[in-house]
Amino acid sequence: MPDPAQLECFDNPDPGRDYVIEHVADEFTSVCPVTGHPDFGTVTVRFVADARCVELKSLKLYLQTFRNEGIFYEAVTNRIADDLSAAMSPRWLVVRTDWKGRGGIRSTITVTVGDAPTEERRA
Amino acid sequence: MPDPAQLECFDNPDPGRDYVIEHVADEFTSVCPVTGHPDFGTVTVRFVADARCVELKSLKLYLQTFRNEGIFYEAVTNRIADDLSAAMSPRWLVVRTDWKGRGGIRSTITVTVGDAPTEERRA
Amino acid sequence: MPDPAQLECFDNPDPGRDYVIEHVADEFTSVCPVTGHPDFGTVTVRFVADARCVELKSLKLYLQTFRNEGIFYEAVTNRIADDLSAAMSPRWLVVRTDWKGRGGIRSTITVTVGDAPTEERRA
Amino acid sequence: MPDPAQLECFDNPDPGRDYVIEHVADEFTSVCPVTGHPDFGTVTVRFVADARCVELKSLKLYLQTFRNEGIFYEAVTNRIADDLSAAMSPRWLVVRTDWKGRGGIRSTITVTVGDAPTEERRA
Amino acid sequence: MPDPAQLECFDNPDPGRDYVIEHVADEFTSVCPVTGHPDFGTVTVRFVADARCVELKSLKLYLQTFRNEGIFYEAVTNRIADDLSAAMSPRWLVVRTDWKGRGGIRSTITVTVGDAPTEERRA
Amino acid sequence: MPDPAQLECFDNPDPGRDYVIEHVADEFTSVCPVTGHPDFGTVTVRFVADARCVELKSLKLYLQTFRNEGIFYEAVTNRIADDLSAAMSPRWLVVRTDWKGRGGIRSTITVTVGDAPTEERRA
Amino acid sequence: MPDPAQLECFDNPDPGRDYVIEHVADEFTSVCPVTGHPDFGTVTVRFVADARCVELKSLKLYLQTFRNEGIFYEAVTNRIADDLSAAMSPRWLVVRTDWKGRGGIRSTITVTVGDAPTEERRA
Amino acid sequence: MPDPAQLECFDNPDPGRDYVIEHVADEFTSVCPVTGHPDFGTVTVRFVADARCVELKSLKLYLQTFRNEGIFYEAVTNRIADDLSAAMSPRWLVVRTDWKGRGGIRSTITVTVGDAPTEERRA
Amino acid sequence: MPDPAQLECFDNPDPGRDYVIEHVADEFTSVCPVTGHPDFGTVTVRFVADARCVELKSLKLYLQTFRNEGIFYEAVTNRIADDLSAAMSPRWLVVRTDWKGRGGIRSTITVTVGDAPTEERRA
Amino acid sequence: MPDPAQLECFDNPDPGRDYVIEHVADEFTSVCPVTGHPDFGTVTVRFVADARCVELKSLKLYLQTFRNEGIFYEAVTNRIADDLSAAMSPRWLVVRTDWKGRGGIRSTITVTVGDAPTEERRA
Repeated sequence: MPDPAQLECFDNPDPGRDYVIEHVADEFTSVCPVTGHPDFGTVTVRFVADARCVELKSLKLYLQTFRNEGIFYEAVTNRIADDLSAAMSPRWLVVRTDWKGRGGIRSTITVTVGDAPTEERRA
Repeated sequence: MPDPAQLECFDNPDPGRDYVIEHVADEFTSVCPVTGHPDFGTVTVRFVADARCVELKSLKLYLQTFRNEGIFYEAVTNRIADDLSAAMSPRWLVVRTDWKGRGGIRSTITVTVGDAPTEERRA
Repeated sequence: MPDPAQLECFDNPDPGRDYVIEHVADEFTSVCPVTGHPDFGTVTVRFVADARCVELKSLKLYLQTFRNEGIFYEAVTNRIADDLSAAMSPRWLVVRTDWKGRGGIRSTITVTVGDAPTEERRA
Repeated sequence: MPDPAQLECFDNPDPGRDYVIEHVADEFTSVCPVTGHPDFGTVTVRFVADARCVELKSLKLYLQTFRNEGIFYEAVTNRIADDLSAAMSPRWLVVRTDWKGRGGIRSTITVTVGDAPTEERRA
Repeated sequence: MPDPAQLECFDNPDPGRDYVIEHVADEFTSVCPVTGHPDFGTVTVRFVADARCVELKSLKLYLQTFRNEGIFYEAVTNRIADDLSAAMSPRWLVVRTDWKGRGGIRSTITVTVGDAPTEERRA
Repeated sequence: MPDPAQLECFDNPDPGRDYVIEHVADEFTSVCPVTGHPDFGTVTVRFVADARCVELKSLKLYLQTFRNEGIFYEAVTNRIADDLSAAMSPRWLVVRTDWKGRGGIRSTITVTVGDAPTEERRA
Repeated sequence: MPDPAQLECFDNPDPGRDYVIEHVADEFTSVCPVTGHPDFGTVTVRFVADARCVELKSLKLYLQTFRNEGIFYEAVTNRIADDLSAAMSPRWLVVRTDWKGRGGIRSTITVTVGDAPTEERRA
Repeated sequence: MPDPAQLECFDNPDPGRDYVIEHVADEFTSVCPVTGHPDFGTVTVRFVADARCVELKSLKLYLQTFRNEGIFYEAVTNRIADDLSAAMSPRWLVVRTDWKGRGGIRSTITVTVGDAPTEERRA
Repeated sequence: MPDPAQLECFDNPDPGRDYVIEHVADEFTSVCPVTGHPDFGTVTVRFVADARCVELKSLKLYLQTFRNEGIFYEAVTNRIADDLSAAMSPRWLVVRTDWKGRGGIRSTITVTVGDAPTEERRA
Repeated sequence: MPDPAQLECFDNPDPGRDYVIEHVADEFTSVCPVTGHPDFGTVTVRFVADARCVELKSLKLYLQTFRNEGIFYEAVTNRIADDLSAAMSPRWLVVRTDWKGRGGIRSTITVTVGDAPTEERRA
């Protein structure tokens, strides 16, 4: 099952700055808790780090732990946001999941934590 | 006929947050109440949930109940908005239907319920 | 000749809401009052209904009555706006006509009646 | 030579409204006053009429009178704006000319007369 | 070497108006002052003229004088801005150069002189 | 290893102006400090120079010094920003790195130093 | 009703050559003989002339005579092929009609008269 | 009027080879002999030269001589083919004219003189 | 002036194979021998080597020697084909030049030397 | 340096069939043997296996061994073809390398070993 302990961090190389980090994982898969069929989607993580940054390989391994988990789209998205928040305590974080069609329906879930930096609000 | 009882919900996994959920069903069909011919369109549902989220398979089955229903585009759109509102009591909801051409005319109907969250208004 | 009596309406299924309806007819033809040659164009109708909505098949038949009418682009556009206003008394209405090239000149005429709803103004 | 007398007008079918008319002529040609070589371009005219609208065939014939005229891009654009202003006294007028490359240089000239209507400023 | 005397002007046909003129030269070449290799780029000039407008053929010949000149991208861009400013005294001027890749690096330099007219700021 | 001494500068040809310089290097490669595998990305540098501008060939050679360096994405981006700041003392600087997918995850890091000029903020 | 007498011809300027002429009319309209609704389509005429070539304005006027004719797609296509054959006696003729969707169905009818020239067969 | 004397040639730099030359002139204009209105089109010339090649500037000036000539599309195309044949005696020549829409009809005329070289037939 | 001595070769690393090498240089410039104005184009070289392959940097320097040469498109293309043939004695060679528009005319010249390998003929 | 011993194989799961395998590596880099600068390209490997198939991770590690190797494009391509031929003895093999521009020149090298299967020849 999803294991936040997988998320390893390294020290932010420049904590004095507000700079924006984005990781896009487009090979995410979990299982529908209602039908038992696999779901496929893209997970986008965008944040301003504080003292710590999530390490990329550990993020990949963490995302892989959802592979056989029966879990709603909405819960996946909030869970990732919660686990990344716990691991990194970022200054700002957006997690968006884009799911391929199931029964002719495509879905997108977007969770935001904290206030966007000035540059982001202007974009 | 369209049956709102088909719409099942599960508990919002994170009701403390305003986050955005979007489902796009592009295999929708109903029947024209004037000519009796089939209509084909795409239904887009976008919302911020409150205590409950609509379950995806039940949404698919609910949308299928319109298949042999003679009903105007405008009524379809408002009906879906009403039924989803009743089932979920969302904080904000947009239902948009895009209809393929009939007699050389394409149509789009957009219904909005509630105030858009800050992020949406900025987009 | 153009006959507004062709425009039939049905009761707005949800008059309590400001929601947006758009119909795009891309097989429109009328006749140039100066040269007598046929004109071809697309008619886009976008509105917020009040008590009544125009029925789609009647709109198609109404638009067909321009087929052999000698009439300027500008008059077509205002005429459709006037007839739809009389038939539906919409809260807001935009009629746009896009005309194929004649003598190397393409034209677009846009008529707006009433104030756009909040969502439209933001878009 | 360019002859504003070519520009015929008809009565604005709805002078009580501010509505937008656009004509795009993409088969325009004149002559370079320096080299004597032909220039080719597109003329876009966009306006809100007051009491009169320019008639399309007369606009075509008027634009054809530039065919063998030696005239700068900038003068063509202002001349068309002046002649249309004199003929129609529009409430607002934009004339834009887009010229094909000459000696590896492409050019665009844009002249605006009067204040844009509310809808245009918002766009 | 670059010769501003090449830049000939003609009287602005309508100095009473603020209207926008844009010339795009996409066959520009000069020489890198460090490696001696040729550089290739596009020069975009956009301005509101005051009393004088630059004549197009003279602009072409002026730009050709950079062909065998060893000069930095930044200096090319400022030089063109300075020479056009001296020749025309425009009310507003933007010069942008877009350079093809050298050693895997593409570059863009943008110089602005004076305040943009209202229409431009809104765009 | 990355060597800021590689960064050579030349005198800003027009320090009296705030103008914008952008260099895009899309053949950047370094090494992942965790897995030892090569990383590939694009480095975009955008700035307003003060007294000095970075010379393009030296920038290329400087970027090549990361080729066999084991270093995090975040550190690469801040390091380039720091080294360019030290070499040029620019008035404003943005460094953005866009990394190709590793383990199915694509990343983008954006570092900003100083306040954007007026033109940039409006864009 | 369709009137082949509209089709005027001029002498082939080079009857000694087999060369290919193609005219594409994309503003064609006729009427469905079953429903009475208008049909819209594109008519493509491609031929090698013998002694006579059809004159373009007369072709336009001839095609306009179908405007209010109730006639099947297949009959339109054969009728045009017959009338052009009678008027021009071409060495080779293809008439193709492409019809916009009606009830979700698009149609194409192709009629060929005579043998294609060598160049056409190779293509 | 069209003047073949405008067509100047230079010695084929390599008459021992069959190689293919193509010139595309997309700023061609002549006048309709029936309506007197201007026609606009693109002229494509493709050939294998024998002893002589047409010089490009003279080709441009020759094509400009059609500017005010009343002449059918078919005659333009054959005329250009004849004049180029007389001037160059090419081993193979194709002249194709593509005309912008007039009265909703677009036209293409293709004239071939001589046998295509092997490479062309295979393509 | 063009100097074939610039073309350096290295031993074909696998002369026992017929394999295809293609180099595309899209920053080529020479001078029109009639007007003295610069010409800009793309040079594509495609060949099967025999004992020797042209070295890429020397090809770049060789192509740069045309920079200030007054020479026809046709002569450029044959010259490059001749010089590469002399330098490499390839088994098969195609040189194609694509020239940007001059006076509204774009040109392409294609020279082939030797027989295409089987794979190429099939393509 | 490139080490073919890195290439590990597994037994072809269906040697009785001619089926096509393609691997595309778009993060390839080596070093120019003339200038010492890094080269970047894409390596496409396409083959019909006989008894053995190359294992994907070993292919990745093998391609990484070129990272700091000074080697010509042509030699890289033949070397990969030779090493894969030695490791797998495929029935048919194509190796194509597409190199990013260096000094304004892009290159593609294509090596084919053995006869293409029927399906491939038809494509």
